[in-house]
Amino acid sequence: MPSVISIGIAGATGYAGQELLRLAARHPAVRVTTAMASSDTDRVRTLPSLTRVWDGEVIPLSVDRLVAETEAVFMTLPDPVAAEVGPALVARGVRVFDLSGTFRLRDPALRRRWYPATPDLAEPPVYGLTEHYRAALPDARLVACPGCYPTAALLALRPLTDAGLLEGDVIIDAKSGISGAGKKPSERTHFSECHGSVSAYGLFEHRHGAEIEQELERAVTFTPHLVPLDRGILETIYVRVGRAVSETMVASTLAQAYADAPFVRLTGNALPEIKHVTHTNFCDIGWKLDAPSGRLVLVACLDNLIKGAAGVAVQNFNLMHGFPETTALLP
Amino acid sequence: MPSVISIGIAGATGYAGQELLRLAARHPAVRVTTAMASSDTDRVRTLPSLTRVWDGEVIPLSVDRLVAETEAVFMTLPDPVAAEVGPALVARGVRVFDLSGTFRLRDPALRRRWYPATPDLAEPPVYGLTEHYRAALPDARLVACPGCYPTAALLALRPLTDAGLLEGDVIIDAKSGISGAGKKPSERTHFSECHGSVSAYGLFEHRHGAEIEQELERAVTFTPHLVPLDRGILETIYVRVGRAVSETMVASTLAQAYADAPFVRLTGNALPEIKHVTHTNFCDIGWKLDAPSGRLVLVACLDNLIKGAAGVAVQNFNLMHGFPETTALLP
Amino acid sequence: MPSVISIGIAGATGYAGQELLRLAARHPAVRVTTAMASSDTDRVRTLPSLTRVWDGEVIPLSVDRLVAETEAVFMTLPDPVAAEVGPALVARGVRVFDLSGTFRLRDPALRRRWYPATPDLAEPPVYGLTEHYRAALPDARLVACPGCYPTAALLALRPLTDAGLLEGDVIIDAKSGISGAGKKPSERTHFSECHGSVSAYGLFEHRHGAEIEQELERAVTFTPHLVPLDRGILETIYVRVGRAVSETMVASTLAQAYADAPFVRLTGNALPEIKHVTHTNFCDIGWKLDAPSGRLVLVACLDNLIKGAAGVAVQNFNLMHGFPETTALLP
Amino acid sequence: MPSVISIGIAGATGYAGQELLRLAARHPAVRVTTAMASSDTDRVRTLPSLTRVWDGEVIPLSVDRLVAETEAVFMTLPDPVAAEVGPALVARGVRVFDLSGTFRLRDPALRRRWYPATPDLAEPPVYGLTEHYRAALPDARLVACPGCYPTAALLALRPLTDAGLLEGDVIIDAKSGISGAGKKPSERTHFSECHGSVSAYGLFEHRHGAEIEQELERAVTFTPHLVPLDRGILETIYVRVGRAVSETMVASTLAQAYADAPFVRLTGNALPEIKHVTHTNFCDIGWKLDAPSGRLVLVACLDNLIKGAAGVAVQNFNLMHGFPETTALLP
Repeated sequence: MPSVISIGIAGATGYAGQELLRLAARHPAVRVTTAMASSDTDRVRTLPSLTRVWDGEVIPLSVDRLVAETEAVFMTLPDPVAAEVGPALVARGVRVFDLSGTFRLRDPALRRRWYPATPDLAEPPVYGLTEHYRAALPDARLVACPGCYPTAALLALRPLTDAGLLEGDVIIDAKSGISGAGKKPSERTHFSECHGSVSAYGLFEHRHGAEIEQELERAVTFTPHLVPLDRGILETIYVRVGRAVSETMVASTLAQAYADAPFVRLTGNALPEIKHVTHTNFCDIGWKLDAPSGRLVLVACLDNLIKGAAGVAVQNFNLMHGFPETTALLP
Repeated sequence: MPSVISIGIAGATGYAGQELLRLAARHPAVRVTTAMASSDTDRVRTLPSLTRVWDGEVIPLSVDRLVAETEAVFMTLPDPVAAEVGPALVARGVRVFDLSGTFRLRDPALRRRWYPATPDLAEPPVYGLTEHYRAALPDARLVACPGCYPTAALLALRPLTDAGLLEGDVIIDAKSGISGAGKKPSERTHFSECHGSVSAYGLFEHRHGAEIEQELERAVTFTPHLVPLDRGILETIYVRVGRAVSETMVASTLAQAYADAPFVRLTGNALPEIKHVTHTNFCDIGWKLDAPSGRLVLVACLDNLIKGAAGVAVQNFNLMHGFPETTALLP
Repeated sequence: MPSVISIGIAGATGYAGQELLRLAARHPAVRVTTAMASSDTDRVRTLPSLTRVWDGEVIPLSVDRLVAETEAVFMTLPDPVAAEVGPALVARGVRVFDLSGTFRLRDPALRRRWYPATPDLAEPPVYGLTEHYRAALPDARLVACPGCYPTAALLALRPLTDAGLLEGDVIIDAKSGISGAGKKPSERTHFSECHGSVSAYGLFEHRHGAEIEQELERAVTFTPHLVPLDRGILETIYVRVGRAVSETMVASTLAQAYADAPFVRLTGNALPEIKHVTHTNFCDIGWKLDAPSGRLVLVACLDNLIKGAAGVAVQNFNLMHGFPETTALLP
Repeated sequence: MPSVISIGIAGATGYAGQELLRLAARHPAVRVTTAMASSDTDRVRTLPSLTRVWDGEVIPLSVDRLVAETEAVFMTLPDPVAAEVGPALVARGVRVFDLSGTFRLRDPALRRRWYPATPDLAEPPVYGLTEHYRAALPDARLVACPGCYPTAALLALRPLTDAGLLEGDVIIDAKSGISGAGKKPSERTHFSECHGSVSAYGLFEHRHGAEIEQELERAVTFTPHLVPLDRGILETIYVRVGRAVSETMVASTLAQAYADAPFVRLTGNALPEIKHVTHTNFCDIGWKLDAPSGRLVLVACLDNLIKGAAGVAVQNFNLMHGFPETTALLP
């Protein structure tokens, strides 16, 4: 292992890309040799908001330069571009941390439906939900980092489904800040359309729902909403537990699952709120059980650009390269 | 029926009280003779933000003056104060439109739990959900106007439960602007605590849930959230329909129920958003059915200070006094 | 004067256009016969947010149809389009209320610089700052309604410059909500760029500055800022008064100027704030004088879509047609 | 110099106090031994939002314990409390970084007017505007860190007044996020009062103005405004330069003054915006000169809780103890 690892960032001008540059600048064993735009026709540019943090130039996308200059690449590219660049890098010996949805679905049929450009890979990607795939990370060559919505949902639910505590289907009501929709202006993300408003979208449109269902092996109704804030998501999750399940069992199951997880904070009945996790890599999880009805409500929140994107990628990078898991990631 | 009706507003300095003054100023057959604070010890004050709209003085609370000067009183008082003032006014011949929770629950046990100050009344109040209690309003003496949360939920669900289309329990995930918490500063409504954040509160704390359950006769899980905007609520409602129920049946049931309701707008699959209803008396309702699973999701939204407070009170007033339902209420 | 006047709205889908539709629907003597998009190639569309308020169709732009169907037209069109459509309508007998900047500048050289498409007109337009051009409105054929920035500045300053109370130049620091930038998405109006931020723009770029200087006949430094809210502007204005000028003189000069102006509210030392004027046609003006230094600071605010656009147009329409000035305009 | 310095934070539960805890946790040579509330009667409490960052207990205020346990104390206390605690700590050998206004004014008359509780000190405090008082910091015992408003203004103006480039008085129009008003709820900082609004306050009320005038030796008109965001301030500064002064001279004067200042970023004609500095210790400064009129407008912005409070205190601490200036302070 070299003392300093040369990394590349492909898609450096977006919101997640800029977070990656900021986190990389804090990492004592990382040097960003190469930062690239999302296409090979973009102009060279600097990032004024990162002056004094990262003062390099963002150049057009080039697989050849990434191969020549880096050992690992963080990718925040459009799905079809990621589908092409990711395998090319892996084939030429570069490790890849992908933040798009391209490589997240294991089922070929589902993958063809939601990510038609994704090729079949000889070696399957590792799903980068760090807390539940820790053992697979050191040897991974292509890490498919989970999206912000699945991360919050799965961190809250996986220990409970693994322990067999839940019955029936799962309802996830998600509230997301607008940065989750990316940096490209659109009517839906126009300030005057979002300010003072809340709207649901993508009802029963299962792209993220499919990712959650894959990991839970259970039917999920997933409804995302846009709320008028910039960063952060909060999910309110409605499930049902068996008659014999108490709130104490829920609490101890979660506590055991995350005893060694530095970025999962369990808040119990004191429900988490977005303000406490923005600009951090934490995922906060709270819950409350109505014993008579068996209704369990969990609330999970995180910063979509950090724990839901750049932060989890760096967390996976740390585990792969043997650095302490929290390197560059504490607030 | 007199040509101009003298009305009083008790609790005129709060957000709903100011909306009442604004609406009353637009009403061609109403004169606000008396505007009062929430207690009999408050100082006399004016309301600069309403200059040129309503230029009177807000005086201390006094039942005697309300009886002497008004025919109808709109009350936005703390529950225990409303519990005392409301029946006193009715006993002395004044009609009352109450915007607090005091008189909403019919079951004495529930009422004692959530509103311990509320007395037993000889003549039961009319529940002022206009669209479903229209016939009872002309003869009402005390109208218990529903809260903003129950209004959105019940307008979406009552036609479906009445038609027997739903199975199982109901989950209501509500997102509310901060004005719903009133005008009194607190840590929870401090700007810096709310801005950029979302938080759930009152999980399984059934005060509004009880009101919704009373009208639906069905178990309800109700989770309110604070979202960083001032006015407006949006509820995402998760229910299940029977195998034989199609989206068309849902649509036609709602369309029939609200064929003559000027303030309910059905948006179908084009889901409503808060921005479209703020500063109006409309309640917008959309929905989508996932036929294979039987999961029906409804989305309803309204302005908590108008359709959820001042507006519905004026709407009930109009029906009681024989004015067109929309008088003073169109945007 | 006919009992009901047929009007057209050209540019009905933008934020100001929708406010015009809303205000027209409230006006007892107006019927919107014709609502048009901003170009002749736009598709026919409806406006779901105005359902039950105005349920017509927005059709492509057509001068012929406006001439055939209307007596007066409100225009919120791009400058070059307004430059062509406005004179064409006037020439064919239709009165025009223009909300663009096209016809506001009197000086031909300045006009050519800022609005190169504007033709020279045989009959000069009336500058529609109602409170100061009231006498000219009844006979106007083309009313150039002032922009939101000049309206606030001029209502605060014109009485003082007319009375000769001010010395030296004028500094106007303006804070504007994002709806002032229109409905078209752009990076500058993208939610995530505006939320939690403030930025200055257009420093010493004198398009609105020129309009203010025209009416004040005095040098103006005008600096607009975007602040993270939707509607409303607030201007903080720094001037200097002569030694003999007291705060009382300032107050009485303003009070006299606006004694009969229903939409100007003078708040004195109690400085106005945006919240009190949004969704109204009011302009609130406060001030404070530091007598030792002669520094006078005025603060003026208004709703940019109403008093700064749709509202002032309707106010001018009322005066032109002999309706009470406040018709359809009280909150 | 010990390898690890024990520090105390007095006033740890407020917004600036929590930033201090976060920054201290990142500092490799600091250990927070003692975190205290703002009074000696407060209860012991933890800070859930800082779980995993700083997990200690906040205890009641106690000078004795601070003396026993710490070498340096960061104070964010109410002015009268700071006036008592600060000198007591210094007298007993503890170095103090004060974030209140208590010790900022040098003129005894002004100090008595604005901070009547402040005692006369044998050894005058060092004014902690790092970039301009760097030489005095290593030997300081009591550092009066400047407020957020003066910091932005002085970083923009001091080099220009020192170089004699300015003529006449100075106008500072400041826009501040609400966290600047602290954590205590009040009507002015109630969410529903601030959202969607802007308001000016404290016109010609010279507490911060006096601090700025002290450092500039020049008359200042200072007008702060509340804008609806949480963190960050932006100041638009209006001055006049002499006939011989060009924009290039302004630029080179500022560039020379801050050649070695890691936290001042000069943006020239590309005006800075709040979004680029929040959650950082940077102060961004841009400007534009209108040569014909001699009007120079500068725009400066910073994060009020970091560069305007906790960050500058740590920056001063670093210089005093010989650590690199940026330790713990890069984003």
